[in-house]
Amino acid sequence: MNKVGIIACGITPFTKNDQKIETILLNSSKNLFLDNPKIEKDDIDAVLISTNNNSKYLSPILSEMIGIQPKIAHTIESLCNSGTNSIVSAYSYIASGLADMVLITGAERYDSPGQILEWDNSRGEFKHPVFWASIFSKSYKREHQVSEEELALVSVKNHMQAKENPNALSNKTYTVEEVMNSKKLTDDLRLLDCSRPCTGGASIVLASEQITKKTTDTPVWITGIGQKTTSASFTKNMSLNSMESTEIAGKNALKMANKNITDIDVAEIHDAFSVCEPMALESLNFSKQGKGIDMIKDLYTTNNFKINPRGGLIGCGHPLGATGIAQTIEITQQLQLNAGKRQVDNVKTGLVHNMSAAATSSTVLVLEK
Amino acid sequence: MNKVGIIACGITPFTKNDQKIETILLNSSKNLFLDNPKIEKDDIDAVLISTNNNSKYLSPILSEMIGIQPKIAHTIESLCNSGTNSIVSAYSYIASGLADMVLITGAERYDSPGQILEWDNSRGEFKHPVFWASIFSKSYKREHQVSEEELALVSVKNHMQAKENPNALSNKTYTVEEVMNSKKLTDDLRLLDCSRPCTGGASIVLASEQITKKTTDTPVWITGIGQKTTSASFTKNMSLNSMESTEIAGKNALKMANKNITDIDVAEIHDAFSVCEPMALESLNFSKQGKGIDMIKDLYTTNNFKINPRGGLIGCGHPLGATGIAQTIEITQQLQLNAGKRQVDNVKTGLVHNMSAAATSSTVLVLEK
Repeated sequence: MNKVGIIACGITPFTKNDQKIETILLNSSKNLFLDNPKIEKDDIDAVLISTNNNSKYLSPILSEMIGIQPKIAHTIESLCNSGTNSIVSAYSYIASGLADMVLITGAERYDSPGQILEWDNSRGEFKHPVFWASIFSKSYKREHQVSEEELALVSVKNHMQAKENPNALSNKTYTVEEVMNSKKLTDDLRLLDCSRPCTGGASIVLASEQITKKTTDTPVWITGIGQKTTSASFTKNMSLNSMESTEIAGKNALKMANKNITDIDVAEIHDAFSVCEPMALESLNFSKQGKGIDMIKDLYTTNNFKINPRGGLIGCGHPLGATGIAQTIEITQQLQLNAGKRQVDNVKTGLVHNMSAAATSSTVLVLEK
Repeated sequence: MNKVGIIACGITPFTKNDQKIETILLNSSKNLFLDNPKIEKDDIDAVLISTNNNSKYLSPILSEMIGIQPKIAHTIESLCNSGTNSIVSAYSYIASGLADMVLITGAERYDSPGQILEWDNSRGEFKHPVFWASIFSKSYKREHQVSEEELALVSVKNHMQAKENPNALSNKTYTVEEVMNSKKLTDDLRLLDCSRPCTGGASIVLASEQITKKTTDTPVWITGIGQKTTSASFTKNMSLNSMESTEIAGKNALKMANKNITDIDVAEIHDAFSVCEPMALESLNFSKQGKGIDMIKDLYTTNNFKINPRGGLIGCGHPLGATGIAQTIEITQQLQLNAGKRQVDNVKTGLVHNMSAAATSSTVLVLEK
């Protein structure tokens, strides 16, 4: 299999702006090409779009706007992990030899139609994600004797980290008390426990080994890939205390990269809601069952940005189709020692965890320099 | 690169039925598994959905309904050539080694939102595909001194061929006069010159060389792939008398397969409108410029089903996301000598041509037994 590297990144601020999807797609791509003048547009074989937006033919549209005539051009959708699905697809085009260079652009509007899975009648009328997150929270607290205040710390930590990220939706910090006093959405969930839908875009270019080495002095390689879908509907899902798709995807990604979880120096974790971060840390084996929250406490008290350095979905906002790409950009910049005030020390190997719909599907990537 | 084969097909009748998208997806997949009991669902690594439907997360939904827990699961959209984009993506997963077996299911409702490219303001208010087809028709007739009656023969031929296809939307035959007397939509286009939107689904399974050889006695191999996007909007497009994206995709597919166009024994051509068939035949180099219509006349008078044996889009109907997959199924069955009354003689090598939006993008596949 051909080796695949990341050679360029571009991102927009995450906002509540009312922009057209084409504008969002264009802006992160433009930023990418401005920051990476070495990349020849004519060398781009494929343009993959990651979004839940209902507009069609967005890849030819973006291609026309930026002046590319690619071979491969289409949109990829898988709710909240559309971004990493697109990255893995791009990887396969390059690894198979069908393409040498692929631009992946993710974009979403704040009012994305991907925010509710209408099909899932297994939860009756409770279709909004806050309801599965609420069930997860109640179950997690009961199973592991974790308090609401402890879960609120995830939001405190990630907002604090987002403050160092100029592209994050939020630039405010909060205390545990402030999270606890934010608007109560359900018995087990406050507003500040939730990632917020927003408008944003993120672009990345993947390339073959040869092009990667020629184009950049700080190559980042995708060395591990794991993906798993267990179901679409919530109640056909795994136990309420673990994320089966994350567990399987994580194991397979580490196996492919020939790494252990202890080798991971920095990770982006899909904290759609506070409870998701400790659950995912446990499912990925960063910590033992029920001990994810202890790991988060340790990181917070030592000001260690190892988990969700860019501020997570809670701090950055969650423009669905852009999220997985933005996570991958953050790990890339960390590996390039280019993450500014968010930089984690001694980073050699990083991990991206991106999931959809109550962890019914997950992608895990391992990145190395 | 690993060799990739086609090991199973399933299709639904193309109708005007008002079915839910999930039902359409399920039906062709069910037919595939019923007809191919050797395929173990647990061995399916990826489920790719091809559609323009606005529903989200359709791959996990289909996977749950048919009892698969795939690694890779997402939807692919590129208007009318979503189907072959999905097939090429599946090919790359297998060729790269990320998957050994991939189910691709295309489905569309008769009222697909992919029928009009809202973004393309280059044609003013004339956004419906009949307008670009009308411009193509006027230009083609003028450039090559072709009459309306001659173009109408495409519809006559393809309806005749569709009559032998039990899954086609149309089972009627028409004379040139009847095509000429059908409802006039524009100065240059009648109703029977057009493929009709419809409800339909098509599924196909691709596999690695090893699995293909183990699973089927009549393997069909994808040996050539060509894809090209020139623009999204019509007026940024090539000359009105040729299809540049088709020309490039065709050359690249034949080059990859190490074949000449004269080696092609049977082909599915994207006849969204009558004029598209001669234009595509010329762009693919089946015939010289302006002589595509002569080739069609020859085939018709000798009752030779070589081009569009299943009846083309005009005879079969055009459920956007299913079309490219249905075309590939037809060529697979032709190569397996399993096409019933539509069987073309001495078939060893076949070609699929699938395009979007006035040929602003095209896919060409070469298939061999």
